[in-house]
Amino acid sequence: MPATNLDIVAIGNAIVDVIAKADEAFIAAEGIEKGSMRLVDTETAEGLYGRMAPGIEASGGSAANTVAGIAALGGRCGFIGQVADDLLGRVFTHDIRALGVAFDTAVRAPEPPTARCLILVTEDGQRTMNTFLGASQFLPEAALDRALIASAAILYLEGYLWDPEQPRAAMRAAIEIAKGAGRKVAFTLSDAFCIERHRADFRALLDEGRIDILFANEGEILALTETKNFDAAVAETAAKVPLLVVTRGEHGAIAVEKGQQFYSVPAEPVDRVVDTTGAGDQFAAGFLAGQAQGRAIGDCLTMGAVAAAEVISHYGPRPEADLNALIAARLG
Amino acid sequence: MPATNLDIVAIGNAIVDVIAKADEAFIAAEGIEKGSMRLVDTETAEGLYGRMAPGIEASGGSAANTVAGIAALGGRCGFIGQVADDLLGRVFTHDIRALGVAFDTAVRAPEPPTARCLILVTEDGQRTMNTFLGASQFLPEAALDRALIASAAILYLEGYLWDPEQPRAAMRAAIEIAKGAGRKVAFTLSDAFCIERHRADFRALLDEGRIDILFANEGEILALTETKNFDAAVAETAAKVPLLVVTRGEHGAIAVEKGQQFYSVPAEPVDRVVDTTGAGDQFAAGFLAGQAQGRAIGDCLTMGAVAAAEVISHYGPRPEADLNALIAARLG
Repeated sequence: MPATNLDIVAIGNAIVDVIAKADEAFIAAEGIEKGSMRLVDTETAEGLYGRMAPGIEASGGSAANTVAGIAALGGRCGFIGQVADDLLGRVFTHDIRALGVAFDTAVRAPEPPTARCLILVTEDGQRTMNTFLGASQFLPEAALDRALIASAAILYLEGYLWDPEQPRAAMRAAIEIAKGAGRKVAFTLSDAFCIERHRADFRALLDEGRIDILFANEGEILALTETKNFDAAVAETAAKVPLLVVTRGEHGAIAVEKGQQFYSVPAEPVDRVVDTTGAGDQFAAGFLAGQAQGRAIGDCLTMGAVAAAEVISHYGPRPEADLNALIAARLG
Repeated sequence: MPATNLDIVAIGNAIVDVIAKADEAFIAAEGIEKGSMRLVDTETAEGLYGRMAPGIEASGGSAANTVAGIAALGGRCGFIGQVADDLLGRVFTHDIRALGVAFDTAVRAPEPPTARCLILVTEDGQRTMNTFLGASQFLPEAALDRALIASAAILYLEGYLWDPEQPRAAMRAAIEIAKGAGRKVAFTLSDAFCIERHRADFRALLDEGRIDILFANEGEILALTETKNFDAAVAETAAKVPLLVVTRGEHGAIAVEKGQQFYSVPAEPVDRVVDTTGAGDQFAAGFLAGQAQGRAIGDCLTMGAVAAAEVISHYGPRPEADLNALIAARLG
């Protein structure tokens, strides 16, 4: 097996977030499920944007947020995702490259435009996402940089990108490239509604041993296993994946290695939860950065918890504070 | 004099900010004066953007930030400024209208694009601005809504917009419309470098009695009067304007009414200065909202200080917290 050039290469939606405050009544009036992610078409996106409060724009995308976090922690990362030849595409490209992430997926024609996600943040810090996939849904298998994937210790994939057909095919191909090169595949289940749409596929990936590290939150692992019993859901899933990581919000996170070795950490304290956007993404970033540094699983969980606590204390899905300093203060 | 429909109508640059962290060495290497605003051309903007850190995008523009703050405090506002027919133009328009601000300046052709300001924020919270004026510099006198200006109690103008020729002519015309309707004219000096470019014009506006309320910070009033003595600068300027408001950063702010009545407030405490972008703009917002509410000048200064303290405690140039609640807690 040749040496790795990268710690992580991720495939994900290339999205710019539009983040605005909203109250519960607004979300109810729009007929949106609070806390979820839904896909919207151009018309719905334009209408909602017209009605929502002033926003800030920031590069987002689940797996892209994760590689941004890993890069901020000193990890060597690559990203594969589809932007259009437009201003948001240039913003996304700038932001991820400015972190030192290798991002060279060929830009696509201006239509459809670069993906955006209208994120409504309520007073309790919960985010409700309305995603217009735009160019992102047209990531073709041909865009895969096979050498890049083969050179990375871990291939990281987001479940959200399973919705559109072309990226789904590309991710299946990428898994085979990574496996063929002897690399690990990490996968995040992304969202309970996303699992409802693709449960059979996600289960098959696990049953066929295509996934080495699985990230989920409590709602997602329950959705995957179609149970209401958390312990049963964890036991069933942990039996199918070498390393399972489950975040539990304010209750911290757990990991199960080889179906039997359990680890857990409490949540890190946060003065005030401002915006939970990116919490799961940054947890994965901290955890995977720990893996890249060869740390013990308990420490990887702590790194995830520190990164998640940082990102929910401000608006925006990527770290603002010096994560290395925060983690050094915590782990030494 | 007919009744006013609006408290404030402002004319200013219609800008979207790109806000990123930078260290002192980066700013020095770019050959930029830390803490200042400079105008840049397309090439310089593109080059700097390529080298700077990941950013967030948020609607900005000095006077636009001020009306956003006044609107957040319940004031009735209008705005006049030039955007292009492009994505940033739609972002700017959405954000200001979502606050209830009347903004109907006709959109211009896509080239040059909507103005943007690359803002570098250092660890001490200081911001250094690199403004690409784009469409903003082509605001024509014909774009003025005369009835809108005549209907507002105060016309508010930003000194920054004195740089380009067309908006300068438009602002001169707007002053005459407001004066003709018996309204007040407020003006912010914006920036010491801007004053270096237009000192004679700014002095003439004061000498000719065209300005009723003048906003400045310490550096600006020294630049205007070409002195190093703050008290002398205040005395000289206060003699030429019915109401002078001077912000002094951590030393609070003062006001002088009719050249002789002095008021002062300390700065409001801030846990941590994150980003000083918009501090002066929000001070003016709080002060003018107080004026619109018919408050005493001392209370207007306090409202300015509260609004400024809020905006420097987070990234971005416009209020995020509930300013009305903060001011109610302070003034009752």
